[in-house]
Amino acid sequence: MKRLCVLGSTGSIGTQTLDVAASFPEKFKIIGLSAGSNVELVEKQARQFKPAAVCVSKEEDAKTLRAKLPGIEVMHGEDGLRALATMDGCDTVVTAIVGAAGLKPTVAAIKAKKNVALANKETLVAGGSVVMPLVKKEGVTLMPIDSEHSAIFQCLHGEDARRISRIIITASGGSFRDWTPEQMERATPEQALKHPNWLMGGKITIDSATLMNKGLEVIEAHWLYDVPYEKIEAVIHPQSVIHSLVEFEDTSVMAQLGLPDMRLPIQYALSYPERLPNPLLKRLNLAEVATLTFKKIDEARFPCFRIALDAGKAGGTVPAAMNAANEIAVFAFLQKKIGFMDIPRTVLKVVAAHRAVASPSLEEILAADAWARKEAENHVSKA
Amino acid sequence: MKRLCVLGSTGSIGTQTLDVAASFPEKFKIIGLSAGSNVELVEKQARQFKPAAVCVSKEEDAKTLRAKLPGIEVMHGEDGLRALATMDGCDTVVTAIVGAAGLKPTVAAIKAKKNVALANKETLVAGGSVVMPLVKKEGVTLMPIDSEHSAIFQCLHGEDARRISRIIITASGGSFRDWTPEQMERATPEQALKHPNWLMGGKITIDSATLMNKGLEVIEAHWLYDVPYEKIEAVIHPQSVIHSLVEFEDTSVMAQLGLPDMRLPIQYALSYPERLPNPLLKRLNLAEVATLTFKKIDEARFPCFRIALDAGKAGGTVPAAMNAANEIAVFAFLQKKIGFMDIPRTVLKVVAAHRAVASPSLEEILAADAWARKEAENHVSKA
Repeated sequence: MKRLCVLGSTGSIGTQTLDVAASFPEKFKIIGLSAGSNVELVEKQARQFKPAAVCVSKEEDAKTLRAKLPGIEVMHGEDGLRALATMDGCDTVVTAIVGAAGLKPTVAAIKAKKNVALANKETLVAGGSVVMPLVKKEGVTLMPIDSEHSAIFQCLHGEDARRISRIIITASGGSFRDWTPEQMERATPEQALKHPNWLMGGKITIDSATLMNKGLEVIEAHWLYDVPYEKIEAVIHPQSVIHSLVEFEDTSVMAQLGLPDMRLPIQYALSYPERLPNPLLKRLNLAEVATLTFKKIDEARFPCFRIALDAGKAGGTVPAAMNAANEIAVFAFLQKKIGFMDIPRTVLKVVAAHRAVASPSLEEILAADAWARKEAENHVSKA
Repeated sequence: MKRLCVLGSTGSIGTQTLDVAASFPEKFKIIGLSAGSNVELVEKQARQFKPAAVCVSKEEDAKTLRAKLPGIEVMHGEDGLRALATMDGCDTVVTAIVGAAGLKPTVAAIKAKKNVALANKETLVAGGSVVMPLVKKEGVTLMPIDSEHSAIFQCLHGEDARRISRIIITASGGSFRDWTPEQMERATPEQALKHPNWLMGGKITIDSATLMNKGLEVIEAHWLYDVPYEKIEAVIHPQSVIHSLVEFEDTSVMAQLGLPDMRLPIQYALSYPERLPNPLLKRLNLAEVATLTFKKIDEARFPCFRIALDAGKAGGTVPAAMNAANEIAVFAFLQKKIGFMDIPRTVLKVVAAHRAVASPSLEEILAADAWARKEAENHVSKA
């Protein structure tokens, strides 16, 4: 029986994590749930899973919940989140919070020697240089939930990682993969949120449309698998059936495939090294899929991919600043404050103005993140 | 340093095995070579690799060679082959002999506690029920050289084989994959030998054109991986880039990919568990390949696939008889004695007339093989 804390339980990954946990009540026990402002849903989840503790953002929401959920400890805010991420009796913390907000609780969980199932790629993008040494030092397991990184993990299973010659991350291409530059300039949030393959949260769906998501994933893969950027590529694969590939030095390429369903990588991250049959998951039928296609990323239409890559290669606090600027730009786009192609423009401006710190501490990373958010807000409000 | 004996060194797999060995003189030492009638080539190979012993089919060829290759022991015939397969100091026997003729030396090698790298699928098709228990008993390793089975092996590496839900073997579809039944009736050996993707020997290229090869591979996979026939499928994949796939109970599908080049599975079988960089091998570029397609096997046009599968499921001596009949029919087709679609007709007649023995001994398998050859010869000479 694995005892789980789910940070961000009301989001897309959070709710799917609970679906998976509910499929195997003899394998997984939910002992902690955290949500932001979706108090109604977290209350429902708490009634179903009967965790020991729940955390929400605001104190007033915590008060309301406390009255409704007798016998469950209800916490709030950053302190509550840290308490949940480090609570006694928890084996694995599922980090499904959106954005760099996931960094602090993830670090707290690792320091408390919890295994982490990580759906929050921004944690590694911003803080990989701090998080990975900590994972090693504390001897915990960091399992990826991203479908691409889960695929890479599965391709590497049983292999000698020193023999990797290339990691090839597949990209659906997002909502605008076949749009012209002119169409993309005028694209609306509603259009960007219609992802062709994956059912995901708003932030990541926009990141998919800009291909920022793929750049963030390259950085994530760099940290997770300790592979230099020169050996990590991305390729457009519109069907999202091959979730990623690893080429070894003998030219053999291993790949992991499946229908696009986040519940599979979530389940694998929780059940590893076991593989569990789950009737919720549908089987891939290649003859039915019929065609898988691949093409290069068009960096002219999708500048965010290169922006992220360059930030990753620059290292230090640059990826943290780049990522924070992107978060602000994406939300400004969702609120119709800026256009779709203003997202890369905003991020580029912030990165250009950033005074990078090499080999930063967690505090310096968080400071770069805070600075970049402010800087991006300035650009966005002027737009 | 692995010391290798290559049985069938002048054939397609044999020569490619020597190419691989020559790429890593510090890893592999050729100590034995066997050939049939290509005495000229085996002499050249012996001069290059300086093995301790060489074997050819005929006594007179052995005499000639003996004079030309001082310091090398030259043997001949079945006894010579057995001596080579069991020779002292050999770690791994590469069985690259064509057809059921590979069965006896392979069994001899296993009994002499040699590891086997098996390119001869007919050995397992005819004798799997005898060979696999022997492999277990002697504690040797049986590595597949077939690209499909090498792919399956790589997909299973590090995994729990009890969690396999399906093995999916890919098939190029062979030379006639898009031909009409009428065209196939009139197909010539020259046309059948033009394989679209793979450079292979004559027998296997015809087996690819009838899809008998895919049926034989299903039987081979059944024995190699101890998986019931109900869990093994084949799918047409004309590009031969995905070499095969394994689906696990959690619906995750692992695949191995690469350009179609037999030297990769040969090298992997020899170097396992190591992966060695080899400049001879070209890297896969998915964006260049651009499209991978898949479709169901058309069993009406390719009856051999089902014939093989049914023989496998029937078990006992049936697959041995079926395989022997196929060998005779394929050679009759190559000699233009029968038409292309007479291959399945001949095999079906022989299988129908076969009196199967359940749980056969090696002798009973060899007897069924001999009987089926005679029976098939009768049908072929009457055609």
